[in-house]
Amino acid sequence: MIYVCRREHFNAAHKLFNPKWSDKKNKEVFGVCSNENWHGHNYEMIVTVKGEVDDDSGMLINLKILSKIIKEEILDKVDHKNLNVDVPFLKGIITSTENVTIKFWEVIEKRLKATKGANCSLHRIRVYETPRNFIDYYGEK
Amino acid sequence: MIYVCRREHFNAAHKLFNPKWSDKKNKEVFGVCSNENWHGHNYEMIVTVKGEVDDDSGMLINLKILSKIIKEEILDKVDHKNLNVDVPFLKGIITSTENVTIKFWEVIEKRLKATKGANCSLHRIRVYETPRNFIDYYGEK
Amino acid sequence: MIYVCRREHFNAAHKLFNPKWSDKKNKEVFGVCSNENWHGHNYEMIVTVKGEVDDDSGMLINLKILSKIIKEEILDKVDHKNLNVDVPFLKGIITSTENVTIKFWEVIEKRLKATKGANCSLHRIRVYETPRNFIDYYGEK
Amino acid sequence: MIYVCRREHFNAAHKLFNPKWSDKKNKEVFGVCSNENWHGHNYEMIVTVKGEVDDDSGMLINLKILSKIIKEEILDKVDHKNLNVDVPFLKGIITSTENVTIKFWEVIEKRLKATKGANCSLHRIRVYETPRNFIDYYGEK
Amino acid sequence: MIYVCRREHFNAAHKLFNPKWSDKKNKEVFGVCSNENWHGHNYEMIVTVKGEVDDDSGMLINLKILSKIIKEEILDKVDHKNLNVDVPFLKGIITSTENVTIKFWEVIEKRLKATKGANCSLHRIRVYETPRNFIDYYGEK
Amino acid sequence: MIYVCRREHFNAAHKLFNPKWSDKKNKEVFGVCSNENWHGHNYEMIVTVKGEVDDDSGMLINLKILSKIIKEEILDKVDHKNLNVDVPFLKGIITSTENVTIKFWEVIEKRLKATKGANCSLHRIRVYETPRNFIDYYGEK
Repeated sequence: MIYVCRREHFNAAHKLFNPKWSDKKNKEVFGVCSNENWHGHNYEMIVTVKGEVDDDSGMLINLKILSKIIKEEILDKVDHKNLNVDVPFLKGIITSTENVTIKFWEVIEKRLKATKGANCSLHRIRVYETPRNFIDYYGEK
Repeated sequence: MIYVCRREHFNAAHKLFNPKWSDKKNKEVFGVCSNENWHGHNYEMIVTVKGEVDDDSGMLINLKILSKIIKEEILDKVDHKNLNVDVPFLKGIITSTENVTIKFWEVIEKRLKATKGANCSLHRIRVYETPRNFIDYYGEK
Repeated sequence: MIYVCRREHFNAAHKLFNPKWSDKKNKEVFGVCSNENWHGHNYEMIVTVKGEVDDDSGMLINLKILSKIIKEEILDKVDHKNLNVDVPFLKGIITSTENVTIKFWEVIEKRLKATKGANCSLHRIRVYETPRNFIDYYGEK
Repeated sequence: MIYVCRREHFNAAHKLFNPKWSDKKNKEVFGVCSNENWHGHNYEMIVTVKGEVDDDSGMLINLKILSKIIKEEILDKVDHKNLNVDVPFLKGIITSTENVTIKFWEVIEKRLKATKGANCSLHRIRVYETPRNFIDYYGEK
Repeated sequence: MIYVCRREHFNAAHKLFNPKWSDKKNKEVFGVCSNENWHGHNYEMIVTVKGEVDDDSGMLINLKILSKIIKEEILDKVDHKNLNVDVPFLKGIITSTENVTIKFWEVIEKRLKATKGANCSLHRIRVYETPRNFIDYYGEK
Repeated sequence: MIYVCRREHFNAAHKLFNPKWSDKKNKEVFGVCSNENWHGHNYEMIVTVKGEVDDDSGMLINLKILSKIIKEEILDKVDHKNLNVDVPFLKGIITSTENVTIKFWEVIEKRLKATKGANCSLHRIRVYETPRNFIDYYGEK
């Protein structure tokens, strides 16, 4: 059992805002992160998959395949976008890094399972909002 | 003559857009950076000042003073903000890192000159939009 | 179940020294780390807490709360201090990164349990003495 | 139970190539990584060992001992070498980071078990081929 | 006058070897860097260009153009290659980082001068062989 | 004319304290940096030398020579030491990063001039006290 990790990045705008709350409560809970006109981040993400090494290739999964999955499912949809407005699979949620990470897991796991030749399973999604704040999700419910 | 460098960071949204151009031309020139609903970055900046070391303190400038200047003049105005919309001293310009860096120079230099006990002059402003793209400005015209 | 990680740093002096040993033995075991007049580090620490995401806020724990806990319980007591001399909760121990990390766990876990609205538990404390030497502790006994 | 992590680095050449395959198939699977005349990397590795802290030293294992093991078993054999040609314990395998990491585990674990005074066991080997591609191995079979 | 910096990277094999010298002298001067079967690096490079900001775009040079130049002139020729064997413009030189950096300058400067719409001049090439060893070249002769 | 940069690091204790001042004034000016029982840092330094590339070796200066100079003149004297107490060439000065950097320049420049085969001159010393605070010195008086 081996774990393969691939790091990617994207730049996006967002804000933390719960439409069920008053502006005052949003400000109290989310502080500057609720700034009406958005703010943004250079997000970094690490996708980790696990499984057994293939004897012929010496690899768990061809990184070209893994990178293609991350690019098509995540980066093409969130890079240089507004996470609250522009991303179908994030609609209706608060775009906290917690929620964003869980949604990334769902999207990547679904695609990975549908990928022929990907004899590995998703182990962890890590998303850095900043170098000092980051989230790990292992698909635990 | 010694050079003192202080690194700070802020998170902001922006987009590259010239209102005198058509949407098509904006898209052609600025690509994904012109996304209508904004994107954003974890900006890093390095402020370098130069001058002579004070014999009594062993310092060029007390970093508490330099940090206070950067905080009040820049960070309080741009952190968790939209550079195109929320920042008075960036109004009416294209928020390219080039222009943002030049504006930061103007604001900090003015304050530094008005600061008693700051026997140093501004040498360089460096702004990282991402770890791979950054701008240096030395006040040259 | 989600894991939220917060990175912080502090600068401190220390030395490795066992008062029950001769100076010669201290030198043999600890080498340059036992230098009589101290040495020091830019320590980095990562605090990881785990639990379930709150539906209303989209967060596990408000990072303002977590940062306040780390600041009050750790940073205010160790930053710009001598770990061997100035820190009550480190008194009488050898200030190896192993021991320091375990003590940080004890202090943070106690405070976290006493914090209303912190519906999460401590998962891991990581302390970097240098970028090349670091310790992980999960509270395992 | 505490986890001690030590980061080291080495510079090496390699290529991905399966001699049982045609050049065409090697090119298809491995792409530019199969370049006939080699390419290379600044590899980084993190060795993590686990066990109980010794009361007298405050340490799990003296880092001088751990560093010596990594130097003699790994760095002296792979640093400024060609992984495919120059390293006896990598002979006959495809030098993917997956396989290299597993071989490092075998070599270090054997030496660690033979080391008097090393009251710890190997927990994980992490090898970074680049900052964006890395492998974790925990000895799981 | 503004300075725009773009960071790129590539992975390559090389060795330091002067064919006019005996193997013994090569070993004496270049040490492990002369290993017969090559070694390699994750090279990082920073290309800095300077000039005046264009009022309409707010940019010195469109980074898409600068990146395309670096990609076509440098990365396509050196990434996943052997610097001593595979790269026409490095033929016949010792592939020290000093020489490699000077050659990169020549290639990029020539292309930049031939590029329409690039109203900027080359200011500096920096090449990192490792995070600890790097070279700056400003075209000074 | 080429510039060769070498990065090194050391861990040391220090405090900022002017014996001609009262404790109160020291506290006012230096704040937490004047903590009586010291604090410390993982210092990083970059030494840059300049000159012409040697045709036979392709190098400005053999990095083994430059590293040996830095090790013998600086690292052996400051690593795991107290900058205020243990270092002869820093005696009697306030150990601000400004002063430390200037003293490093003096020591390295003297040695470099006395080194046969070092056909290069010192260009810059950079010292990082932390990743956010650093000093550049070019020998300007």
